[in-house]
Amino acid sequence: MTVRIPPRSGKGFTLKKGEILKVTDPQGEQVSDMVAFSAADTKEYLSSGRSIDYASRMFLTTGDILYSNRSNPMFEIIADDVKRHDFTLTPCSREMFRKLYDETDPPPGCQGNLEMALEPYGIESDRVPIAFNIFMHVAVDSETGEIEVRPPLSKAGDSIQLRAEMDMIVALTACSAGQSNNHTYKPIDFELLSKEREDG
Amino acid sequence: MTVRIPPRSGKGFTLKKGEILKVTDPQGEQVSDMVAFSAADTKEYLSSGRSIDYASRMFLTTGDILYSNRSNPMFEIIADDVKRHDFTLTPCSREMFRKLYDETDPPPGCQGNLEMALEPYGIESDRVPIAFNIFMHVAVDSETGEIEVRPPLSKAGDSIQLRAEMDMIVALTACSAGQSNNHTYKPIDFELLSKEREDG
Repeated sequence: MTVRIPPRSGKGFTLKKGEILKVTDPQGEQVSDMVAFSAADTKEYLSSGRSIDYASRMFLTTGDILYSNRSNPMFEIIADDVKRHDFTLTPCSREMFRKLYDETDPPPGCQGNLEMALEPYGIESDRVPIAFNIFMHVAVDSETGEIEVRPPLSKAGDSIQLRAEMDMIVALTACSAGQSNNHTYKPIDFELLSKEREDG
Repeated sequence: MTVRIPPRSGKGFTLKKGEILKVTDPQGEQVSDMVAFSAADTKEYLSSGRSIDYASRMFLTTGDILYSNRSNPMFEIIADDVKRHDFTLTPCSREMFRKLYDETDPPPGCQGNLEMALEPYGIESDRVPIAFNIFMHVAVDSETGEIEVRPPLSKAGDSIQLRAEMDMIVALTACSAGQSNNHTYKPIDFELLSKEREDG
């Protein structure tokens, strides 16, 4: 069953070990920020720094493993149409919209939407870390380190599939930042692929 | 007064708003992982993702501000001999030494040393985030995203100065990872430059 995340919002859910999370960009050029926490102990969370270190690569794709802060595997990427995602930036936030977009009445952004999605699971707002920013295209200059947020490479219907390596609490967004999605605020779709869940 | 952090160890201390933290590489080619937490509420911490986003640059240097997860300024870099530091990787750890170095009896690493340095301040081990890895030289390939840890560009006596923008708990290490410091495990020196502290 496909769940649609409306534009500029987020959703939290649980994922069992072995289930496959498929995230689809239904209309193209949209970003979905993903954060994840161990269901057994939410102090264990998806860590960009560990994952990049172990892959020795900033851009992760099929075959790569996403690790927790405790160096345990949380996801394996098992399919990836787009092959370009970001794992360096924190979710867009009210403060970010004020600082980088000069907005006077900014929306909650992915940060606020993730906070709302995680609140029912008892995960506090300060604990939203750097997200795995699915489909987000951040170019990096090797010499200067300058980064540039570009439109995603995702086309309508492109998806990524991540297999859960532990029981988790996960939250996803349909991104609120114009720079990330070429100024078209679109939905994100996701589904859980698993015989176990249907049987259970 | 200069404090020396012995090879493969760490140290925690408090820093008052306005004080200047000077970190020196006394022998050259050594890395110091730095983490910081607001003294008023340690749930607020130094955030790589926010800092990189606001600077629109991965390599931060003189004039750049290091932000907290709440988007508040924590430090301004006011002097920098080396101009190349890393802000993407988590501290080296026992698990990292096992995975990337195939060590069977690994040392605690900067992760373990930061945990020990922060424990007296009530900051739990899971809350060591991506560090500001002073003098760490991580090359990034713009095309593939591949990263390569190279010897630091720091020469003996090179330093960086960071002005505290809030009261903080800070921890620093003399790095334990061979790849980060060209396989020479050396000390790190630091001092707090502040008339206020001397007067107080």
